[in-house]
Amino acid sequence: MALIEIEKLSLEPAGDEEDVVDPWNVQSKNDAGIDYEKLIKRFGSSKIDDELLTRFEKLTGKKPHHWLRRGIFFSHRDVHVILNMYEQGKPFYLYTGRGPSSESMHLGHLIPFMFCKWLQDVFNVPQVIQLTDDEKSIWKDLKIEDAIKMSYNNAKDIIACGFNPEKTFIFSDLEHIGNNPAFYQNMIRIQRCVTFNQVRGIFGFGDSDPVAKISFPPTQAAPAFSSTFPFIFKGAKVNCLIPCAIDQDPYFRMSRDIAPRIGFPKPALIHSCFFPALQGSKTKMSASDSNSAIFLNDTPKQIKNKINKHAFSGGQATVEEHRTLGGNCEVDISYQWLRFFLEDDERLVELEKGYTAGEILTGELKKELIEVLQPLVAAHQERRSKITDEVVKQFMVPRDLGFIAKK
Amino acid sequence: MALIEIEKLSLEPAGDEEDVVDPWNVQSKNDAGIDYEKLIKRFGSSKIDDELLTRFEKLTGKKPHHWLRRGIFFSHRDVHVILNMYEQGKPFYLYTGRGPSSESMHLGHLIPFMFCKWLQDVFNVPQVIQLTDDEKSIWKDLKIEDAIKMSYNNAKDIIACGFNPEKTFIFSDLEHIGNNPAFYQNMIRIQRCVTFNQVRGIFGFGDSDPVAKISFPPTQAAPAFSSTFPFIFKGAKVNCLIPCAIDQDPYFRMSRDIAPRIGFPKPALIHSCFFPALQGSKTKMSASDSNSAIFLNDTPKQIKNKINKHAFSGGQATVEEHRTLGGNCEVDISYQWLRFFLEDDERLVELEKGYTAGEILTGELKKELIEVLQPLVAAHQERRSKITDEVVKQFMVPRDLGFIAKK
Repeated sequence: MALIEIEKLSLEPAGDEEDVVDPWNVQSKNDAGIDYEKLIKRFGSSKIDDELLTRFEKLTGKKPHHWLRRGIFFSHRDVHVILNMYEQGKPFYLYTGRGPSSESMHLGHLIPFMFCKWLQDVFNVPQVIQLTDDEKSIWKDLKIEDAIKMSYNNAKDIIACGFNPEKTFIFSDLEHIGNNPAFYQNMIRIQRCVTFNQVRGIFGFGDSDPVAKISFPPTQAAPAFSSTFPFIFKGAKVNCLIPCAIDQDPYFRMSRDIAPRIGFPKPALIHSCFFPALQGSKTKMSASDSNSAIFLNDTPKQIKNKINKHAFSGGQATVEEHRTLGGNCEVDISYQWLRFFLEDDERLVELEKGYTAGEILTGELKKELIEVLQPLVAAHQERRSKITDEVVKQFMVPRDLGFIAKK
Repeated sequence: MALIEIEKLSLEPAGDEEDVVDPWNVQSKNDAGIDYEKLIKRFGSSKIDDELLTRFEKLTGKKPHHWLRRGIFFSHRDVHVILNMYEQGKPFYLYTGRGPSSESMHLGHLIPFMFCKWLQDVFNVPQVIQLTDDEKSIWKDLKIEDAIKMSYNNAKDIIACGFNPEKTFIFSDLEHIGNNPAFYQNMIRIQRCVTFNQVRGIFGFGDSDPVAKISFPPTQAAPAFSSTFPFIFKGAKVNCLIPCAIDQDPYFRMSRDIAPRIGFPKPALIHSCFFPALQGSKTKMSASDSNSAIFLNDTPKQIKNKINKHAFSGGQATVEEHRTLGGNCEVDISYQWLRFFLEDDERLVELEKGYTAGEILTGELKKELIEVLQPLVAAHQERRSKITDEVVKQFMVPRDLGFIAKK
């Protein structure tokens, strides 16, 4: 009996009533934000359920990260395969990336990196981090030199998340592809397997898009195959796990489709939902609107002012009405952000109950959030201030990460 | 008064009555072969005329190569610009290339390299030679490793043409692009300037072609810009002259269109006509039909047999008819090949007159051709036998070629 592969490679365009989610646009039709249950069905991925979390805890002996417990990382492809490998003592590696920006990174940008750092600690595995400065130079029409500078600048914030320098390789596409023949060779192998029709279906490219855009998806796919990094994996075929926001899924659906055709295991995926903008959950936090985001270089005062001024409230029009009717946690940004950054489960439940019952006011939620974020951002800044150019270079040198392929 | 740029970027498809000439197909409608006058009009290039040749001789003090005198290199773009630079003591460089093959190279493949070697001697300039093993692996669905081997193998035949090792850089795309960040960066700069619509118009790509094909033209365009080779040109903007068969023109029409947008001079071009197959002038010599070509590793006996057996004759059905009616040099392959490889102008005129008048028989023309080609191929084999792997590596190391940008 043959198993039927039901994974969808090409995404039907979102219908009029559906949320728009692709690598360049995230826009919900509802105040409560993206309907992630629907998205799992549309994308053909799997929900992260209690069974998976129980298995994770049993195998690793570690309590799942609060982002797993709270459904912030909510969807996956083949994480069971990765856990099987771990169970059998077989190696895997982590891959994530970022399109670097000239502005400081914001809180939302930290999510995949903080989560990867945690996974790296739990599993003690190599991590590769791709900075797609080529993508940025294409989509934003930036000078190559400026895009590379952005990579180096953003690398400091990424390193400040605490990655193990012995096990982490960070690279700029614009610099590294010209320093690693295996990378360009894998780009060609991947480019051979995907047609213009397919990238049009997956990414929505059109006839008047530049060749640079059409060529880019294979560049993001290449690091999902261990042969791209011979200096790390020494020719071994190693499974890959990719934590990313769900909008990046199209790239890796394509990678998974290609994998067997180039003789490699399909990369596994673990998807996060979006970190909402201060103004509300309809879209994700954006670096281009400075009032929608808390940046990693914001001062305690800026953090306080932005939250007090802009954080969308789920409360009622007056204190009296709020006490009677209660607040709405689903749309309240302070509560939503606390779900991300307040680690104390009990306190989060208290706040949710209190706010919903009208006992806690929006101002109090905001105060709680400010008290969580001010030290978190300050600690990040403190760590980042110690990341010299020399440290960045260490992470960016193609090198042996001590990987040994076990049987 | 503004000059109007009439160069055609996108080629209208050949009409029903027109010759097909693109990088993958060459097919004439007539026995006498491609109508090159029409091709110059369709492509929008310029004819190499007596004025250009006179200027060439005056400036260089060298008699133009017999391929220039005989119209074998018959068309150009902006060669006057290159001669202006030479006149002013400004530098330029030569660029040509080849899609490597597993079989031995054949006589037709030598044309651009023999001509480049001569130009290098006349002008004493750097030469870069691109081996597009990535292209071959894409179009022929070859293993990457096999395509690279073909590059190394073909490099020996190219080096045997006599290039100056101090001034010549030969590279395999699959190896070199991953060893030269400037190359990938220029690929991105070029890819940004050309849309899918444009490559479809120029190269005839379709929606179900793989991304690899769509991405390739910028890879062939990159070496036409000196910033692709910082180790040779050290940041100087240096004009480029590209000798190639006319079927490669579409790549460089595209390069010329892009040049000003990335701040570089348009590469100049000098086009050869095709080296006809033994079977006749309707198409070019092809490596895939071993009876259509003389290979560089053919023995004297093979050369003799192939020519005697397969060379299309412009003669009449019987000796008597031939003596009366005369032969047709336009379609006779022995004569056509002698135009390429018999350097003695007077002898060539004698043969043409004698054959046309019916005094010389096809068998005699064949004999003359065999006597020209046997020593030519033997001498090539002799030179090639001395090209060790070590010598190939010397040519393929990215290195300083002693280039100094003059004012």
